[in-house]
Amino acid sequence: MSETLTGPRNLEVALGERSYPIHIGPGLLGEPGVLAPWLAGRQVMIVTNEVVAPLYLERCRASLPAGVEVRELVLPDGEATKTLASVSRIWDALLEAGFNRRCTLIALGGGVIGDMVGYAAACYQRGVAFIQVPTTLLSQVDSSVGGKTGVNHPLGKNMIGAFWQPRAVLIDTDTLATLPPRELSAGLAEVIKYGLIRDADFLAWLEAEMPALRALEASALTRAIERSCALKAEIVAEDETEQGVRALLNLGHTFGHAIEAHQGYGVWLHGEAVGAGMLMAAELSARLGWLSEAEVARTRAIIGAAGLPLAAPADMSVEDFLVRMRLDKKNVDSRLRLILLRTLGDACLFDETPAELLEALIEAFPRG
Amino acid sequence: MSETLTGPRNLEVALGERSYPIHIGPGLLGEPGVLAPWLAGRQVMIVTNEVVAPLYLERCRASLPAGVEVRELVLPDGEATKTLASVSRIWDALLEAGFNRRCTLIALGGGVIGDMVGYAAACYQRGVAFIQVPTTLLSQVDSSVGGKTGVNHPLGKNMIGAFWQPRAVLIDTDTLATLPPRELSAGLAEVIKYGLIRDADFLAWLEAEMPALRALEASALTRAIERSCALKAEIVAEDETEQGVRALLNLGHTFGHAIEAHQGYGVWLHGEAVGAGMLMAAELSARLGWLSEAEVARTRAIIGAAGLPLAAPADMSVEDFLVRMRLDKKNVDSRLRLILLRTLGDACLFDETPAELLEALIEAFPRG
Repeated sequence: MSETLTGPRNLEVALGERSYPIHIGPGLLGEPGVLAPWLAGRQVMIVTNEVVAPLYLERCRASLPAGVEVRELVLPDGEATKTLASVSRIWDALLEAGFNRRCTLIALGGGVIGDMVGYAAACYQRGVAFIQVPTTLLSQVDSSVGGKTGVNHPLGKNMIGAFWQPRAVLIDTDTLATLPPRELSAGLAEVIKYGLIRDADFLAWLEAEMPALRALEASALTRAIERSCALKAEIVAEDETEQGVRALLNLGHTFGHAIEAHQGYGVWLHGEAVGAGMLMAAELSARLGWLSEAEVARTRAIIGAAGLPLAAPADMSVEDFLVRMRLDKKNVDSRLRLILLRTLGDACLFDETPAELLEALIEAFPRG
Repeated sequence: MSETLTGPRNLEVALGERSYPIHIGPGLLGEPGVLAPWLAGRQVMIVTNEVVAPLYLERCRASLPAGVEVRELVLPDGEATKTLASVSRIWDALLEAGFNRRCTLIALGGGVIGDMVGYAAACYQRGVAFIQVPTTLLSQVDSSVGGKTGVNHPLGKNMIGAFWQPRAVLIDTDTLATLPPRELSAGLAEVIKYGLIRDADFLAWLEAEMPALRALEASALTRAIERSCALKAEIVAEDETEQGVRALLNLGHTFGHAIEAHQGYGVWLHGEAVGAGMLMAAELSARLGWLSEAEVARTRAIIGAAGLPLAAPADMSVEDFLVRMRLDKKNVDSRLRLILLRTLGDACLFDETPAELLEALIEAFPRG
């Protein structure tokens, strides 16, 4: 992991006939025709939001070949728009444009746009092509890989959706220059997660390179995104529909979802909640005798170095956590299943955590 | 095709790990526990409509094993309810009941219920189990096999949906006793279609047995349904997502959709429009020199014997047809693709029909 990198990197998500490439590097967006190889036909709709449109819509349009019919749809920004009503707006626009089954949707934006556009593509005329152009670190390393699409419901996050793979993912690291620092940190939470669950060498590399990453050094970003996507792609290829190993990607997420749900979605960023949640998972793993105190300290240090919270919300009681955690949809038939760490770089799904141990961990975990 | 049949018949739709069984016969619904093998977990929701509920909901409930949590949702009847709003009601009910990813939906009713419940299952928490219990002939031989699910949009039929396979299909031929004769005829249109596109022997058998079918003789019904499902299952297994041979199932449908759209959906039954549409396809095939006049006469005779219309709506002009047919979603990139007959029992996809020939056919076709 030590060589210097320049130029774009390519990798493949291996899913048989649903395999697709990920292209990563600076300056990719805006290259004339760079999106051409993955268009299903001549009808293209770029869907983005009000924040991203002024920054990158023109560059995205310039990435298309001549002779295609391009429509644009600009939705409001934010997690609150990740609803069936927004997806319906996409479907309305597609039908009003007379788009057929060989159209292509382009998701230009963060995870909210990617999830909604992917779901719109999954269900328009029972499935059309789409391309992910993620513009936030979180969506570059997480939601753009793996085919999870969907929207929130008033009674739960991501409750309505589909597994639907993009034709390709185009990650232009230059787009991170306009990302607020807090969102960069939130994306780093997921990057750290890949190291924690599956790659101790990558974790050590991240410990060394965290300052470079936060300073947006292009070669460090490209390498971090590439390794994150590769690790996620490996896992997704093993388990496309989350029957087994894919669940490990949820390290920190059951705690994190509890925090997000308690605060109201959008108060903490998803990555911030996952950051604190991963530390809770690490501390619980130590209480089970799996992690050493030194390993917990390393976990705490790298989460802190990424600019992520090391404490839960001040007003969250043990009961607040427990109630939210039991509603998490990963808990099949109401058994509490948690992703924990056997050691740094090796996660496991564990459903026998004694309730007392969990409660004691939550009780003792700092609030801030 | 001549032996006498009694008792239930079983067949398998071969789709690799998405394979599922179809059970056909009298008296299946209501057998205690008959649905047990296909439940994913202990949470079950039966979704039906106001017409079917008083007839078969109790029997469906009795088909479940003891110890499962059963919820029921009764929607209004009719094609007009096949909307995203109705599917949202199913999602709301599932979330309000706290149903998790191991729940099972049961679609009890005709094609509208099957399509909506299948789509609800496809997208609830990115996909849960569902069982089809079709109670109309049309849904038994058509929409319950093949995994097409979805809803209508104000701008087009079946525009929003997914491919999602059921765990099993349970076809109780006794449910046809309460089906209005007009709907029985509409179902027979699709049965005849299988003979026309792929099985000349079956077509000959149907010519002989049409009176028995319309008199609801159980052994004839069981055989007709079994052979129809087997033919559709073969085609779907070859081409799950409609890239090729599956398109042949649309014989008569481009004409039929034009009739339905022109009249307003629900004026003609789908099967009635397909009946007239198949005759139009047969006559066009004759104009191309493929079918003999005797074969067209056989086609006309069996469609008439099933009680289906042999004329298009009186007020439909050539232009009315052409405008609607070009909007049909099977016409990729605006080329007019029609399913036609090379001979009885052998259909093909043909996209080189001269416009004059098509217009002359529509012009000459009887109105009534």
